[in-house]
Amino acid sequence: MKKIINKPENVVDEMLKGLVLAHPKYLTRIDGFEVITRAGKKVGKVALVSGGGSGHEPSHAGFVGEGMLDAAVCGAVFTSPTPDQVFEAIKGVKTDAGVLLIIKNYTGDVMNFEMAMEMAEAEDIKVDKVVIDDDVAVMNSTWTVGRRGIAGTVLLHKITGAAAESGKDLAGVKAVAEKVIANVRSMGVALTPCVVPEAGKPSFTLEEDEMEVGLGIHGEPGVEKMKIKTADEIADILMGKILGDMPLQSGDEVVVLVNGLGGTPLMEMYVVNRKVNEILAGKGVKIIDTVVGNYMTSIEMAGLSLSVLKLDDELKALYGAKADTPALKSFG
Amino acid sequence: MKKIINKPENVVDEMLKGLVLAHPKYLTRIDGFEVITRAGKKVGKVALVSGGGSGHEPSHAGFVGEGMLDAAVCGAVFTSPTPDQVFEAIKGVKTDAGVLLIIKNYTGDVMNFEMAMEMAEAEDIKVDKVVIDDDVAVMNSTWTVGRRGIAGTVLLHKITGAAAESGKDLAGVKAVAEKVIANVRSMGVALTPCVVPEAGKPSFTLEEDEMEVGLGIHGEPGVEKMKIKTADEIADILMGKILGDMPLQSGDEVVVLVNGLGGTPLMEMYVVNRKVNEILAGKGVKIIDTVVGNYMTSIEMAGLSLSVLKLDDELKALYGAKADTPALKSFG
Repeated sequence: MKKIINKPENVVDEMLKGLVLAHPKYLTRIDGFEVITRAGKKVGKVALVSGGGSGHEPSHAGFVGEGMLDAAVCGAVFTSPTPDQVFEAIKGVKTDAGVLLIIKNYTGDVMNFEMAMEMAEAEDIKVDKVVIDDDVAVMNSTWTVGRRGIAGTVLLHKITGAAAESGKDLAGVKAVAEKVIANVRSMGVALTPCVVPEAGKPSFTLEEDEMEVGLGIHGEPGVEKMKIKTADEIADILMGKILGDMPLQSGDEVVVLVNGLGGTPLMEMYVVNRKVNEILAGKGVKIIDTVVGNYMTSIEMAGLSLSVLKLDDELKALYGAKADTPALKSFG
Repeated sequence: MKKIINKPENVVDEMLKGLVLAHPKYLTRIDGFEVITRAGKKVGKVALVSGGGSGHEPSHAGFVGEGMLDAAVCGAVFTSPTPDQVFEAIKGVKTDAGVLLIIKNYTGDVMNFEMAMEMAEAEDIKVDKVVIDDDVAVMNSTWTVGRRGIAGTVLLHKITGAAAESGKDLAGVKAVAEKVIANVRSMGVALTPCVVPEAGKPSFTLEEDEMEVGLGIHGEPGVEKMKIKTADEIADILMGKILGDMPLQSGDEVVVLVNGLGGTPLMEMYVVNRKVNEILAGKGVKIIDTVVGNYMTSIEMAGLSLSVLKLDDELKALYGAKADTPALKSFG
């Protein structure tokens, strides 16, 4: 295991300490919990709480800040945060306008966030939830009933965050989030596994000339192992599945996210983006913005995912609204 | 070789196409050249031209934009751009205020940028240069006489870019750049080699339990191969060399850059930052800003570098000035 860490069991705690020390203007941590909140609580708006297992950095804590999240709950690596951690996040950021939980569709996450929601409701906190399942690769998996939630979550955070910041009420913010979920699709490919620090070895292997299409962000099995293909062929495979699930017409407007899984250089992401752009342009689809980089990672896994979000006027305006968080680059 | 590319010989061209397609509001490319310039030429200010071999993304083209660079010259992977490419960049962005070349200290880069400078002077273009050598690891190396230029270059781009944007004349911008160079130190550690696409195999190897301290961003030999140490020990080693070369006093103000080499997850960078912060706080040094992420990479190399920039009032004000480029995150 080649990692720059101290004791594996301390990696999340030490990472969160280093994160808050790097970004004190943006982030604070709730004492005694693996919960990162926005520095300077914002009142008078719906609060957004997201999170999940750690190992997906900069998701989710890197997106805490103006126009995105109010809190990120950071579980152990690839492990759902416990209900009490989520409940602590809800209590830490709750406002009179209510709290919306953003949950990626994994069995553990859904169960634990829902339990926290019940704990909050028992204390008369106004709280609701949405569940994102943007990965078109597989129905059901090791860790999921239904589709998995992957990198499209970052686009969900961006737009739902803007809706909350604009002053919409809880039902209104939830309606926007559900519209994003209905209009975003993702799919990924992996070239290497990754190593959970406490496990110390990869959870699966890929041969030196193999890749796995549709692999999940925790190494869950995908659609098919195959020989490594070219960047253009990979873009064709992923976009084929995405557009097969969500057909686009000439004139449609989209945001594209080319997301690195942690070990893939920007060089490769940009090479793939060239082909993605060509595929969409060939259909007359208008790309409003393209985001390229490491946003929803799997520790040091090599590979990438593509996400396409179809916009309407409302989503487009919210996408372009100001946001300012540590991990944000060229959105909007 | 596990890479998501098409033909290795096309990787730089295709990457630049994908880059410009992703960021059309920021970037344009000079037709027929591997030169990226700022979309919408800015007149009335000194133009900054940087660059070098490709493979260091997002450096340097990701830092073209408001408050940073006017052009980035992108050579073949780990290969200095030719003088005619640099000359084309100079002609593309030159203004009456002049052009400043920012060169990392590698023999090929210095020679080719200086030849381009002579070509520009022959056409009566006002042009000057600075050479950055922030790597304290080794004096002289495979590719260098003197110290190498590494990740501190990104901080140089930020502050020099602000100086140019503020309207200083060429001598004034150069003086700021030289002050940055005099006050920034960096050093890195690598856990794995990287693979140049056209070579197809690593240029060196490290055993499964080894790391190399002071390795250069092209895989040039460093100070010492040793068994992998903990994050805290690595931070101690790197900061020890940096502070040994540039002693800091209580009350000094600095910017810290924890720079990933391409294959290192943010998780590890934040764990290291926790210790870096502790070391500096222990000396009473005030950290004005901390930048964490992949800024000056070596394709998919695992490892990281630390850079420390000592500020005075002028550098602090320029550091905090507005900048807006595709690769920029939480500067200032």
